[in-house]
Amino acid sequence: MNAIPKRFGQIIRVKPEKLDDYIVLHKNPWPCVLERLDKSNIGNYSIFLAPGDLLFAYFEYFGQDLDADLRLIAEDPCTQKWWYETDPCQQSMDPDGKQQWLDLKEVFHMPAGNRG
Amino acid sequence: MNAIPKRFGQIIRVKPEKLDDYIVLHKNPWPCVLERLDKSNIGNYSIFLAPGDLLFAYFEYFGQDLDADLRLIAEDPCTQKWWYETDPCQQSMDPDGKQQWLDLKEVFHMPAGNRG
Repeated sequence: MNAIPKRFGQIIRVKPEKLDDYIVLHKNPWPCVLERLDKSNIGNYSIFLAPGDLLFAYFEYFGQDLDADLRLIAEDPCTQKWWYETDPCQQSMDPDGKQQWLDLKEVFHMPAGNRG
Repeated sequence: MNAIPKRFGQIIRVKPEKLDDYIVLHKNPWPCVLERLDKSNIGNYSIFLAPGDLLFAYFEYFGQDLDADLRLIAEDPCTQKWWYETDPCQQSMDPDGKQQWLDLKEVFHMPAGNRG
């Protein structure tokens, strides 16, 4: 486990007609989905709704091998069922079409040592 | 100080012709600005660049009186000089025009107790 996590910002578009479904799903996320994220060293995960039907995700990765941890998430039957519900709500903004959520470039971070 | 902070997601548009200026400014943020944020109980502050000239901010508030802490930031001469540099780079998306950054609605948060 890393004391200082790697930070991720991501964006995706939500289909306006699916917004209510998306919000209801995420108000009561399935415990098995959360458990798989946790086991894959992902935490402090939030999603915000922005104008223009945009969703902005922020999470932190505390592990050492992100690719392996993401693969375990993708192979998890519970997560696959969850994505079967959520994917139709979303429209990827990844120009390469390789992943649902598009990773954003971090242009600022407040140094952690600054607090206290 | 609160052990569990309040989370904020915010959005603003960056003027395309000012993007380079914005990035350079935020690569070397002024220590007095960071210090004022810290004293106002704001931490874990990141800004991400998204398609469509959008900036997403995420930060955490660890204090008890956000309005008072934000007022101290707004009254800080150093921060005022910083905003004199950054405000012209930005175009607010707040429909009320009351603040530069528009606060977003959080639609998901992974429970902290889930980790470990």
